[in-house]
Amino acid sequence: MEAMKIKFGVIGLNHSHVFAMVDGLLKTGQAECVAYFAPEKELQAQMQKASPQIPLARNAAEILENPDIQLVCSASINNDRGPLAVQAMRHGKDFFVDKPAVTTLSDLDEIERVQRETGRLWFVWYGERLMDPASQKGIELLESGVIGRLVNFIGLGPHKLRRPTRPAWMFVPEQYGGIINDVGIHQIEMFTHLGGGKPTVTSSRLGNFGTPDIPSFHDFGDATLTAPNGATAYVRVDWFTPESMPTFGDIRNILVGTKGMMELRKTVDLAVDNNRFTGHQLLLVTNEKAPHRISCEGIKVTLYDDIIRDVRERQNRCVPHAASFAACRATLEAQSRAIRLTQ
Amino acid sequence: MEAMKIKFGVIGLNHSHVFAMVDGLLKTGQAECVAYFAPEKELQAQMQKASPQIPLARNAAEILENPDIQLVCSASINNDRGPLAVQAMRHGKDFFVDKPAVTTLSDLDEIERVQRETGRLWFVWYGERLMDPASQKGIELLESGVIGRLVNFIGLGPHKLRRPTRPAWMFVPEQYGGIINDVGIHQIEMFTHLGGGKPTVTSSRLGNFGTPDIPSFHDFGDATLTAPNGATAYVRVDWFTPESMPTFGDIRNILVGTKGMMELRKTVDLAVDNNRFTGHQLLLVTNEKAPHRISCEGIKVTLYDDIIRDVRERQNRCVPHAASFAACRATLEAQSRAIRLTQ
Repeated sequence: MEAMKIKFGVIGLNHSHVFAMVDGLLKTGQAECVAYFAPEKELQAQMQKASPQIPLARNAAEILENPDIQLVCSASINNDRGPLAVQAMRHGKDFFVDKPAVTTLSDLDEIERVQRETGRLWFVWYGERLMDPASQKGIELLESGVIGRLVNFIGLGPHKLRRPTRPAWMFVPEQYGGIINDVGIHQIEMFTHLGGGKPTVTSSRLGNFGTPDIPSFHDFGDATLTAPNGATAYVRVDWFTPESMPTFGDIRNILVGTKGMMELRKTVDLAVDNNRFTGHQLLLVTNEKAPHRISCEGIKVTLYDDIIRDVRERQNRCVPHAASFAACRATLEAQSRAIRLTQ
Repeated sequence: MEAMKIKFGVIGLNHSHVFAMVDGLLKTGQAECVAYFAPEKELQAQMQKASPQIPLARNAAEILENPDIQLVCSASINNDRGPLAVQAMRHGKDFFVDKPAVTTLSDLDEIERVQRETGRLWFVWYGERLMDPASQKGIELLESGVIGRLVNFIGLGPHKLRRPTRPAWMFVPEQYGGIINDVGIHQIEMFTHLGGGKPTVTSSRLGNFGTPDIPSFHDFGDATLTAPNGATAYVRVDWFTPESMPTFGDIRNILVGTKGMMELRKTVDLAVDNNRFTGHQLLLVTNEKAPHRISCEGIKVTLYDDIIRDVRERQNRCVPHAASFAACRATLEAQSRAIRLTQ
């Protein structure tokens, strides 16, 4: 007998990731989206076009107060995501949110407190790890010891700014939450996963090199971190990828272990075979064998199925709270304590 | 009429770089090596084999006191290089030394003082910049603005340890001077060149992940730096390159500018075309054009000719003292102030 579909609602369409998240949940065949709400007419039109069968609610409260809804999915404006998580959990819903899930340490404190009190589940869409076959395979190989013990992790998250396409709130620091928090969370979350818990931030910096007309905006950020297992990391994020890049950014992880090296080229293999887009499948390993490519074919990303299973079974396996809180906390520390470079 | 050859002597053969340095000077056809000294019999034998025409002096003083010798060339034990520079300059000689040129800030102070007092020339062999066609071309392109203003520089200097082949002094901290100073000088010197002067060290770390039997040894080091022109850097060096790597290490620089990106793969292009050794010629640029390779063919490295010209003309063009002192000082600061990671 087929299990009943879980019912979810959507609040906030302010980043296009939400369309992938909704689509992913629907494609499992085990979830039904019963309503969505976004105040912006143009985003409503996008949702209407993408999923005309999903009705628009009158407001967020209608979704939060609907007793049939088990899960609220959101990519609202960054600084609304923390308070919305708290509201959703207080209304008895699980919450599935785009990264960054939170923009301040006090909001994170509140999310942690309410999650513990309510026992609701709080899932964050860490796309560069959970949706990426090379990351899945790389983590599996690292954990099986192919490059020995992790010594250093470099996470590079360059992006195209495409400034005319960005919403106004991205340039309001309080709403946006900063570049390290928005983009660096991917890298720091991956390192938290590899490093055995919350890393310590050793140093971090923020700079504005290319956006002098908005002095409060940062188009560059970096951080060094040290993990509980002793591994070290450097994370660098920026908004300087040229339009000519055949993908949104050349996302890379470079790992050194005591017995070898590993490089994940997650989006593009630069200047090779006509800038081949790798389909998230380029993993280079050097260990007792000379540098070689590892196939990531057949690696399935199972995040959406895993979320539905956790919701049904009241388990916290696929995006464990402790690690997720730790990653957000380290990232918010790197963001909030960063040296502001003067230009 | 052919100019008279300059006469040089060699003191200290403790790193094999010295054989490349001597060979490079001789191949200009404008220099003659009149004597060498090294106390170690096995290193004397290597020199005898490489250049049987060069006579062994009785001691270092015989070279320092020889009035015919204009230039002393050295790759002695790291911590002897600073005092030897001072001795050579006080004896009226110019000095050409392998990197690292100095292991302590007080030795650097003394070198600077004596250089100013004597007006002698102090050349350091910064091989990864001055001997590398991709670096030469990359700097030329950066300075011509192809990726805009420099935002971030990542310098990776992984190396094979090949521990049984290393001399005992490498594992004596005072003699060796540390991994950031020994290996990271390449990266920090490049960044000093690109950044317009002495960078500020924001953070640095040292770790021993793979050599627990020698607790005072560090097989990992990193640092973040900020340059006078506002550019940021991350430098990482380690001794974990596996023997299977087809070169001594996968040396890379990754640059982000306000208008593009540049990657220098100086020694190997991993897992492409049978791990092609690039002949120091792989330079990848993404700017208004999609990612593309830039040929470094025809780029000549002219360090040895330049040294001889500077010696003859009493100029300080090819390895300017101010930049060289700045690079050594920043590197020694990163080394001496580093957080020692506990494992």
